[in-house]
Amino acid sequence: MPAGIPLTTSMVQDALARRRLGYGRGARMKFEQDQVTLVGGVRHGSTLGSPVAIEIANTEWPKWEKVMSADPVDADELDGLARNAALTRPRPGHADLAGMQKYGFDEARPLLERASARETAARVALGTVASSFLAELGIRTVSHTTAVGTVSVPEGAELPAPDDATALDADPLRCFEKSTSDAMVAEVDAAHKEGETLGGVVEVLAYGVPVGLGSHVHWDRRLDSLLSGALMGIQAIKGVEVGDGFTTAARRGTAAHDEIVRGPDGYPIRTSNRAGGIEGGMSTGGVVRVRAGMKPIATVPKALRTVDTATGQDTKAHHQRSDVCAVPAAGVVAEAMVCLVLAQAVLQKFGGDSVAETKRNLDSFVASLEPLPV
Amino acid sequence: MPAGIPLTTSMVQDALARRRLGYGRGARMKFEQDQVTLVGGVRHGSTLGSPVAIEIANTEWPKWEKVMSADPVDADELDGLARNAALTRPRPGHADLAGMQKYGFDEARPLLERASARETAARVALGTVASSFLAELGIRTVSHTTAVGTVSVPEGAELPAPDDATALDADPLRCFEKSTSDAMVAEVDAAHKEGETLGGVVEVLAYGVPVGLGSHVHWDRRLDSLLSGALMGIQAIKGVEVGDGFTTAARRGTAAHDEIVRGPDGYPIRTSNRAGGIEGGMSTGGVVRVRAGMKPIATVPKALRTVDTATGQDTKAHHQRSDVCAVPAAGVVAEAMVCLVLAQAVLQKFGGDSVAETKRNLDSFVASLEPLPV
Amino acid sequence: MPAGIPLTTSMVQDALARRRLGYGRGARMKFEQDQVTLVGGVRHGSTLGSPVAIEIANTEWPKWEKVMSADPVDADELDGLARNAALTRPRPGHADLAGMQKYGFDEARPLLERASARETAARVALGTVASSFLAELGIRTVSHTTAVGTVSVPEGAELPAPDDATALDADPLRCFEKSTSDAMVAEVDAAHKEGETLGGVVEVLAYGVPVGLGSHVHWDRRLDSLLSGALMGIQAIKGVEVGDGFTTAARRGTAAHDEIVRGPDGYPIRTSNRAGGIEGGMSTGGVVRVRAGMKPIATVPKALRTVDTATGQDTKAHHQRSDVCAVPAAGVVAEAMVCLVLAQAVLQKFGGDSVAETKRNLDSFVASLEPLPV
Amino acid sequence: MPAGIPLTTSMVQDALARRRLGYGRGARMKFEQDQVTLVGGVRHGSTLGSPVAIEIANTEWPKWEKVMSADPVDADELDGLARNAALTRPRPGHADLAGMQKYGFDEARPLLERASARETAARVALGTVASSFLAELGIRTVSHTTAVGTVSVPEGAELPAPDDATALDADPLRCFEKSTSDAMVAEVDAAHKEGETLGGVVEVLAYGVPVGLGSHVHWDRRLDSLLSGALMGIQAIKGVEVGDGFTTAARRGTAAHDEIVRGPDGYPIRTSNRAGGIEGGMSTGGVVRVRAGMKPIATVPKALRTVDTATGQDTKAHHQRSDVCAVPAAGVVAEAMVCLVLAQAVLQKFGGDSVAETKRNLDSFVASLEPLPV
Repeated sequence: MPAGIPLTTSMVQDALARRRLGYGRGARMKFEQDQVTLVGGVRHGSTLGSPVAIEIANTEWPKWEKVMSADPVDADELDGLARNAALTRPRPGHADLAGMQKYGFDEARPLLERASARETAARVALGTVASSFLAELGIRTVSHTTAVGTVSVPEGAELPAPDDATALDADPLRCFEKSTSDAMVAEVDAAHKEGETLGGVVEVLAYGVPVGLGSHVHWDRRLDSLLSGALMGIQAIKGVEVGDGFTTAARRGTAAHDEIVRGPDGYPIRTSNRAGGIEGGMSTGGVVRVRAGMKPIATVPKALRTVDTATGQDTKAHHQRSDVCAVPAAGVVAEAMVCLVLAQAVLQKFGGDSVAETKRNLDSFVASLEPLPV
Repeated sequence: MPAGIPLTTSMVQDALARRRLGYGRGARMKFEQDQVTLVGGVRHGSTLGSPVAIEIANTEWPKWEKVMSADPVDADELDGLARNAALTRPRPGHADLAGMQKYGFDEARPLLERASARETAARVALGTVASSFLAELGIRTVSHTTAVGTVSVPEGAELPAPDDATALDADPLRCFEKSTSDAMVAEVDAAHKEGETLGGVVEVLAYGVPVGLGSHVHWDRRLDSLLSGALMGIQAIKGVEVGDGFTTAARRGTAAHDEIVRGPDGYPIRTSNRAGGIEGGMSTGGVVRVRAGMKPIATVPKALRTVDTATGQDTKAHHQRSDVCAVPAAGVVAEAMVCLVLAQAVLQKFGGDSVAETKRNLDSFVASLEPLPV
Repeated sequence: MPAGIPLTTSMVQDALARRRLGYGRGARMKFEQDQVTLVGGVRHGSTLGSPVAIEIANTEWPKWEKVMSADPVDADELDGLARNAALTRPRPGHADLAGMQKYGFDEARPLLERASARETAARVALGTVASSFLAELGIRTVSHTTAVGTVSVPEGAELPAPDDATALDADPLRCFEKSTSDAMVAEVDAAHKEGETLGGVVEVLAYGVPVGLGSHVHWDRRLDSLLSGALMGIQAIKGVEVGDGFTTAARRGTAAHDEIVRGPDGYPIRTSNRAGGIEGGMSTGGVVRVRAGMKPIATVPKALRTVDTATGQDTKAHHQRSDVCAVPAAGVVAEAMVCLVLAQAVLQKFGGDSVAETKRNLDSFVASLEPLPV
Repeated sequence: MPAGIPLTTSMVQDALARRRLGYGRGARMKFEQDQVTLVGGVRHGSTLGSPVAIEIANTEWPKWEKVMSADPVDADELDGLARNAALTRPRPGHADLAGMQKYGFDEARPLLERASARETAARVALGTVASSFLAELGIRTVSHTTAVGTVSVPEGAELPAPDDATALDADPLRCFEKSTSDAMVAEVDAAHKEGETLGGVVEVLAYGVPVGLGSHVHWDRRLDSLLSGALMGIQAIKGVEVGDGFTTAARRGTAAHDEIVRGPDGYPIRTSNRAGGIEGGMSTGGVVRVRAGMKPIATVPKALRTVDTATGQDTKAHHQRSDVCAVPAAGVVAEAMVCLVLAQAVLQKFGGDSVAETKRNLDSFVASLEPLPV
């Protein structure tokens, strides 16, 4: 990350607080507090060009200090600690069983630290740096919930803009459509009553992205590929779409693409944005629009079947928390990932060791684009 | 790639021929022939451990030799060549406009070489190497078409196995369900008649994948992330799913995960495979299952509106080929990409400089997995 | 890093203490204490397979809390703080001037955090993890000083083995040759008296490295290339050698290579180790031996000329510390870098998610090597 | 590589011809001809932004067509072909033995393709692209021989500039100092007579490099680290220096660094260039200067001892070619590697998808540097 990006502890804290948002979260989310320390790479509210290191302490840590101690702990200090009990009932839908087998662990506890969605706090914190960098360049993002369980925002509904972020954060499900939000709340309540959990879909929009991020020349430099990998890499995400995504796959050609016409200021523009602002693996200058589909929380109150690897007996999975739905938080995480990808793509095209330099390069590129002849 | 992978010219040629398959392709696909040369990294039908280089010559090249000559060509030799005419009418849905702006070209021809789906021939060729490597380890893939336009394989339909590949290649749309295939043919015919193009959905299945490929520890090492980036990086792909994907996002928790029970041989198994063989970013040992949604071919006979960047006039996009639907080919490309990702993931976990070494490491890992206690 | 590597706070602390060793260091080194916290990736003295995060707190931090605060500080709190004075006299031989220009800073303080050799503490800490991993596989390293200023260990002197580490750490200059060490002490004393600083040469040896790390197939996979980049990437290093290095460049062919003969146990061995255990970019199974040449400390008591970028006046560079020679510490840092490179190369060849798996793969590879026929 | 870099077949051919230069090369070098084809990424003498692919055919290939055929060849076609005889006498100083063990080959032939210095032809070809790109930005390189065997250019000798390249290429050893060159010729003649081979030292200089390439923030972004890895990754290189290298390690502080003063045009300049144009891992704006030490050719006429791995007998290594010294060629290869590293570093800092964009960004950065106040 270049030097000169505005960054403060409170910016990171605010972003982390948004990750805890949403109707359907358990009590834990409400009382824990992320304690943020900017450990390195920032001075007097501005990045230094060196790696930014952020520590997010968890107020729950004292309860786990012995059980998760990095240094060895005497066996008799651990004996009888309930928290230290071996987790030998791998939970379906979690990393537990595959992870135990991959790493050769005889229980799942060594996996929890990184497999947990708690790890997304780190992404949101770093996404704050990326977001602040992008904002300096006039690129702003917003995320919202488009589906919870079977309740979806109607097709053609208005899309939020960056300035709608506060209103979205105030909505119980970070949904931009009031009546849909109400239906989502009812869906969550019903699920809660039945001991169920819910998934859903979130959408991230990036405004002000210049044309030409990503590239058509190799698959792993394509902006759509990079965004897709970043979103699918979020815990519990099982589907990713760019623009109209799978809907477009069912359309006919004349209804699937974005026609090009002369815009009011003489530059070519597109009459629609079905492509989600990306064609040929490159940003088009339109709004970048991606979606991620999240499976229901895997820790289901109406517990799922599993086996105890210590005894070999059939059993039920642990049910450790009371969240019904984490979709609103997933939107915040997805937005962070999009910011990280866009920031990388910006640096790839425009370079720069300081915000001023990157901005100068970006601006001179945009200025070099020519309007259509008259 | 390790040494000792079986590879011959005809293996690559066969794979490339499969990329040309499918109802709805124009005449061009049928008569062109890929001329394959294994340029380096292979000796006597076996890889050497050094980079494998494959040249795929295009029989159409002589017609383009001057227009696309690497070395400068006298202006008067180019003058009047129709093929050399500047492409100043950027085609909607293609890389044309974004690419011209990104790279500072005043026409689109310099982009065509890499933005074209022709580039996927290279991926299929390299996928052949990966596929052959995986086969030595007992990992085999198969791909099939699950939707063309609005016609989809019914939910719950039987999934093909690797041995079904020949039957699939014989089907006009590489669809595993006869009646759906018939409906797809009708859909293609109807679209063709109306000057339309079609997209669809393809699915890739990988059998024999051991538990533990990928990792939960960092987002960009997760197998789902890697697969998603690779699939979304294919031209015209706009959506990607792992396992049940977006369908799972609408389910409730008890219907969304794969319960774990004792299997017949004493090892833990899952009672379903909604997760697509990946949990916590790691392969579970089940069948890996991913899907990609393709937009309709962007070169639509009923031509789309665009502008001529040389004159500034509104116009229609070039319509250069007669394909209606490239979905069957996309399945072959997607399968190649899955093979490339899995091969990388295998090497990441098991290492090995020769097939024998990788296989020895993989086998000893699998042998180290313990059955449940009785 | 795989799971199961032994790691404790005190292991890291011990390694960091070795970085502070050496005759010719100023008072600062003696009184500061590195406060180590294993922040993540380790439990009960063993790595978890997830990223290992280590925090090294500096006891000097309270003095710098305002001046280097990440968050903004009121101007009047900073005013008059001597430590906050702008560093506008770029020091020759440091990153100051190039860094100010590259990042657009008007003074050098924002650079100091990362450009300082203090940053090598992080490398030594992480090198401890790599070293512990390698030790589990039977690979052990040792480093020593071979030259300080103009005083060098005589050619053909005995090389230290890993078990000599304690003795080396006890030597004032980490030199393995007593009489040379005495001369080095005298050299340091003389330089100190004259307000001078000294550089020198360190050597790292790795024992137990199996044949086949690195690769001949591409320049950036060659073990010599990787080691060289890692050593030259240490602050103040200006030269790197593998095996006999530049000495070999002046030899004739018959005196420059290592002949191959049947070893006592029937395997082929080399009669010498001029190559430093690396041929064709691959480890040969012999002792890996590399050297790094360090320039004298750039902060010279007899101060160097510079300009004040704020006033434009000619001036003298700040002289902030009293170290004469940091060569012994450079050996410790170089050893850490070699461990990091070797650990990566081991994982590249042998894979493994746990120490047990990597060791199993390595052992089975070594067992697969065949003795010469009789 | 950005679009718009001038590139023609003859540019690549000329560069490859320089790789064959030098007194002390055998007959082979003189009669073989590299046949160059620009396979992709270039049109009408200018790069397209897509990957540049270059094929270098070897006129010797027809003799090897069966022996090195990618596809299987009937055993009876191979039987009795001398060229196909298994290479079971691993040559000291080559990749042969380590490679056979690493990859599990029972002879060395499968290694030769990539381990051979012939592979450097590819680097020189790609270095031509990098060099042409850099030239567009005003960055030019030159390489020369500073030592052959025990004969060295005297310290303090004048350094060549880019315009001296033709004169250097005309010198039998690419040495810039006439009397030293004569002595080198004599050294080569003497070695040849005695059945010996020679190594030496080459130096690469880069002029016009702007301040700020590379970075102090992480070891693997340091320009010195990148250059060192690239040079040590060349076959037969065993030592690398930046600036005065090991010489500086023996100096005292006041004689080791480059003092800073006001330059004639008001910008700060350095009074010397002991650092080789790199401080703190960043280019300083001075001439970048690096050296590489090459061991003598490993195929020594006075053959070295080895074992026959097929029979287990002590024997002598094959002696297949008559080169005495390849140092002049190594300079050409080293220059290519330096160009590749600098081109990457330029793109890292300045970005750009076309030469025009990179140049605009570089120029605006240089213009942003401020002179000292008066």
